[in-house]
Amino acid sequence: MRVRNKPWANQFILDHPESIVDDPEKYIGKWESRFPNDAPIYVEIGCGKGKFITEMAEKNPNINFIGIEIQKSVIAMTLKKVVNDHLSNVQLIHTDGGLVNTFFKKGEIAKIFLNFSDPWPKKRHTKRRLTSPHFLQSYQDVLPDRAELEFKTDNRGLFEYSLVSLNNFGMKFETVNLNLHDSDAVKDNVETEYEEKFKEKGPIYKIVAQFVD
Amino acid sequence: MRVRNKPWANQFILDHPESIVDDPEKYIGKWESRFPNDAPIYVEIGCGKGKFITEMAEKNPNINFIGIEIQKSVIAMTLKKVVNDHLSNVQLIHTDGGLVNTFFKKGEIAKIFLNFSDPWPKKRHTKRRLTSPHFLQSYQDVLPDRAELEFKTDNRGLFEYSLVSLNNFGMKFETVNLNLHDSDAVKDNVETEYEEKFKEKGPIYKIVAQFVD
Repeated sequence: MRVRNKPWANQFILDHPESIVDDPEKYIGKWESRFPNDAPIYVEIGCGKGKFITEMAEKNPNINFIGIEIQKSVIAMTLKKVVNDHLSNVQLIHTDGGLVNTFFKKGEIAKIFLNFSDPWPKKRHTKRRLTSPHFLQSYQDVLPDRAELEFKTDNRGLFEYSLVSLNNFGMKFETVNLNLHDSDAVKDNVETEYEEKFKEKGPIYKIVAQFVD
Repeated sequence: MRVRNKPWANQFILDHPESIVDDPEKYIGKWESRFPNDAPIYVEIGCGKGKFITEMAEKNPNINFIGIEIQKSVIAMTLKKVVNDHLSNVQLIHTDGGLVNTFFKKGEIAKIFLNFSDPWPKKRHTKRRLTSPHFLQSYQDVLPDRAELEFKTDNRGLFEYSLVSLNNFGMKFETVNLNLHDSDAVKDNVETEYEEKFKEKGPIYKIVAQFVD
């Protein structure tokens, strides 16, 4: 997702160091200190404009959430929601990439969400897909055994690739949904901005799978 | 698939013992003797009216094929094609069910195809689905290590179930296709009668996965 540059974003991020960091390596092993309690931490990689993570945080006050996003103008919009809604159970990381094992230690987080990640459709960009083995290894490095990865996308090619990649990585599938919005599972679904817009255009695919050490 | 009873079916089957058997247990370990050569044997479970298996047999003269089908009126139609086209590389088994490990021995066959198997959508019928663990075990019992299962269906629920079931069984996914007829893979695809009729109504799903001992 590309959005227009937001002139206010820079200052707004500087004004809210209590909710957003850009030096996540500093907090490795200490993320609990960024929250009012030691509830389990769920992470969304690529939180975009923040609809998913902020709604999840409101619905699940006993879970702490961390949203990671590369684009400054985008994460600033998430930050706005976090600040306006006084969501003490959300922290944001503005980072221009890198693997999560560089800023979490094993078992520090409990679950990872990937929502509508960049499909990187060209074969030579396979390694950039967030469900490629290098990234899966990085997730496994920071999650406890049997932790879940939840992944949603409307991109058929990315989902086909991901089913094979997660399987080949040795992950155990719990559920696969090939049309989320035409299934019972939709009643518990929290939508992203993108999903809200594109759910009528074609199927939304979803998989929940466990890392098995 | 239900078809009208065919009065000629009984006699036609009786007239062609060279191509069809109804006592497959008798041939366990001896299937090679039913073919003119010792080429690898591929098996289609539920061969229906035979379009797939007879076309595969024509395209692959160096492979021997065995088609298994429960319904007499249906397998009689496959038999008609086999007889009319003089397909010496096809054998048929008319059986009212049972597991393949009761009539093949380990390594006797090289590959299994499931095409548009009965979806058995009710939860209490899960065990009847041909991709349920009990059946997968029976396939693994007769296939060599790393042998492939190829499975096609247009039934979303059955495919969702099968992705989880094959993964949980420890199978290694090679390819997953969520819309076979809208992909490059279609050029090598051999259609079944059912597929020909229903491919325009919605996606045909396909997985190729390996058994890993």
